[in-house]
Amino acid sequence: MLGLFNSKAAWQHSYTLRAHYPWAASPLIASAPMRLISTTPLAIAVSRAGGLGFLGGGTDLSNFSLLLNEATATLQSFPIPNTPPGILPIGVGFICWGADLSTAISVIELAPLKPAAVWIFAPREPKDLIAWTEGVRKASNGKTKIWIQIGTVAMALDVAKSCRPDVLVIQGSDAGGHGLAQSSSIITLLPECADTLTTEGFEDIPLIATGGIVDGRGVAAALTLGASGVCMGTRFLASPEAVISDGYRNAVVEAKDGGVTTARTTVYDQLRGTVGWPETYNGRGVLNESFRDHERGMSEVENKKLYENAMKLGDQGWGENGRMTTYAGTGVGLIHKVMPAGEIVKEVLWDFRKSLLKTEGEL
Amino acid sequence: MLGLFNSKAAWQHSYTLRAHYPWAASPLIASAPMRLISTTPLAIAVSRAGGLGFLGGGTDLSNFSLLLNEATATLQSFPIPNTPPGILPIGVGFICWGADLSTAISVIELAPLKPAAVWIFAPREPKDLIAWTEGVRKASNGKTKIWIQIGTVAMALDVAKSCRPDVLVIQGSDAGGHGLAQSSSIITLLPECADTLTTEGFEDIPLIATGGIVDGRGVAAALTLGASGVCMGTRFLASPEAVISDGYRNAVVEAKDGGVTTARTTVYDQLRGTVGWPETYNGRGVLNESFRDHERGMSEVENKKLYENAMKLGDQGWGENGRMTTYAGTGVGLIHKVMPAGEIVKEVLWDFRKSLLKTEGEL
Repeated sequence: MLGLFNSKAAWQHSYTLRAHYPWAASPLIASAPMRLISTTPLAIAVSRAGGLGFLGGGTDLSNFSLLLNEATATLQSFPIPNTPPGILPIGVGFICWGADLSTAISVIELAPLKPAAVWIFAPREPKDLIAWTEGVRKASNGKTKIWIQIGTVAMALDVAKSCRPDVLVIQGSDAGGHGLAQSSSIITLLPECADTLTTEGFEDIPLIATGGIVDGRGVAAALTLGASGVCMGTRFLASPEAVISDGYRNAVVEAKDGGVTTARTTVYDQLRGTVGWPETYNGRGVLNESFRDHERGMSEVENKKLYENAMKLGDQGWGENGRMTTYAGTGVGLIHKVMPAGEIVKEVLWDFRKSLLKTEGEL
Repeated sequence: MLGLFNSKAAWQHSYTLRAHYPWAASPLIASAPMRLISTTPLAIAVSRAGGLGFLGGGTDLSNFSLLLNEATATLQSFPIPNTPPGILPIGVGFICWGADLSTAISVIELAPLKPAAVWIFAPREPKDLIAWTEGVRKASNGKTKIWIQIGTVAMALDVAKSCRPDVLVIQGSDAGGHGLAQSSSIITLLPECADTLTTEGFEDIPLIATGGIVDGRGVAAALTLGASGVCMGTRFLASPEAVISDGYRNAVVEAKDGGVTTARTTVYDQLRGTVGWPETYNGRGVLNESFRDHERGMSEVENKKLYENAMKLGDQGWGENGRMTTYAGTGVGLIHKVMPAGEIVKEVLWDFRKSLLKTEGEL
């Protein structure tokens, strides 16, 4: 119950986020660093609309420098008001088990404008997060804030102690794409993290909630549960800026009842030949023929062959009867149309306020 | 996004609940009908404190009449103010696949005071819910309200159409005890149900959220997501009125990080010899040696034997190194002490208001 009485902490978290990302509205709306999907148009559109967009640095950093330069050029030509000096008003996320730290460090060192934040998740060993935290802080002369994603209370505390991140991203079980195979949703994970961190003296770390947040209602819920901002991934898949095929995008918009039409599985990584994720992780995606054949006992070899054939079908390869990987969260059923990323940010902020006012009618 | 603009529906839902349960505060706080655990002391304490307590009717209705008579006698001696005439200000829940409808009907028919609500869940076939709904309404002359629990959007709509229940209980994946093996949390399930029901013309049915709600923050979150009230199960296990051993109760209070220390599994039903649950259901409980041995490949026969031995240990049979069934939700880590059920209701209502006011600081 600590968090409830800790309105000082809540105010402090908001203040911290507003100080660090002064171009952004409050509560902070971030877009997830989705590998290959979150490139400069998406990240910049989100920041420009008053959020904080993250580039998906992924595991292969061979074009990270290019990506950052492209963003820098665009933002120097068309700056976002209230951007602090020396800062690029976007973030970049790295999949820690696979990304090369020395490459990340050297690119950030050389960057004329430092990314506002670096988001690190899925380390092979928890201690890898320390090297990343220290390396990025040094390379950016302390300008780049460190966001670390966790999925358990124990990890939240462990990371708070070892890294003192600027933000903890609390990911719940509804999240699309990769996350812990076993986890609770943010309904319980978030308040328990908030309470534990407060008890242990880490109440100064703002919490960003992610996993199942798709509109203003989810934002309001996340804030009552102890977050000061949110991150959305799936919602931004339904934007023209997300670098995905129309087939993937349509599959996200058409899916309903995400609790049954999506599931956490390792099947899609197997079929795509993606290796390297630590054992405790898997990916949530919209279920289709690939998954159903796997459940029916089809061999991986045969399923892979069918997957490769489906890749040639283009947009037809997606959808309920398709086979392609459609990573997305349980919130798919709340997404009904494609909207520019900037409009999504504005709509969510607006609807957050309405949601809160409507709920106050209960008081 | 429909729900957000539908503040008329939100007001209507609150009004409906206040009209149907006029002794209760708003938002409505219900206690779950936990089989063998939720008996008259728990149900009455919750209602007396301004909530709506449910008796756990379970599957074996041989003592249902006794249970109802006991509650009636207590409530006639010590009435709860604002109880409508002819009504018993508590509910009763039935596990539909196992409970005998004709017994339920005849007991309710004969009851001088009708239960305020009957909660039905886990039918063997969806159509069984129709017989239950019609049977209970007839037996109670329309006095007893029908609550039907669902775990998917499709089921919510199907039940709304076929039964027109007075309340839909929306259960998410964080819930303890039995629920759908595959489901999203209320973060997405609740708003999608709210939107779908509104689109299809069922916006008049109030929604009660359950699964991971443990304190005022969860209540506030549930309301922003579209519920007009909540039901808590796990939270009430940590009350002296819950009919469980101290070992079970302590295990609930001591457990932390429910996303990793609890999981959905069929193991405990196997070990207890509980059969009959439809395939789509399993039970969430605190993990212990029984589960770990199962995961390590121990045979069911051997695990059962060890379970039976553990039953003789009394309170020692529970806890992290124990073997006994400890059904509980992911919110276990938010429960730190045992409190009388009535105090839980009051605390949660109080903290709900504080939580909402604190979040408004964001506006």
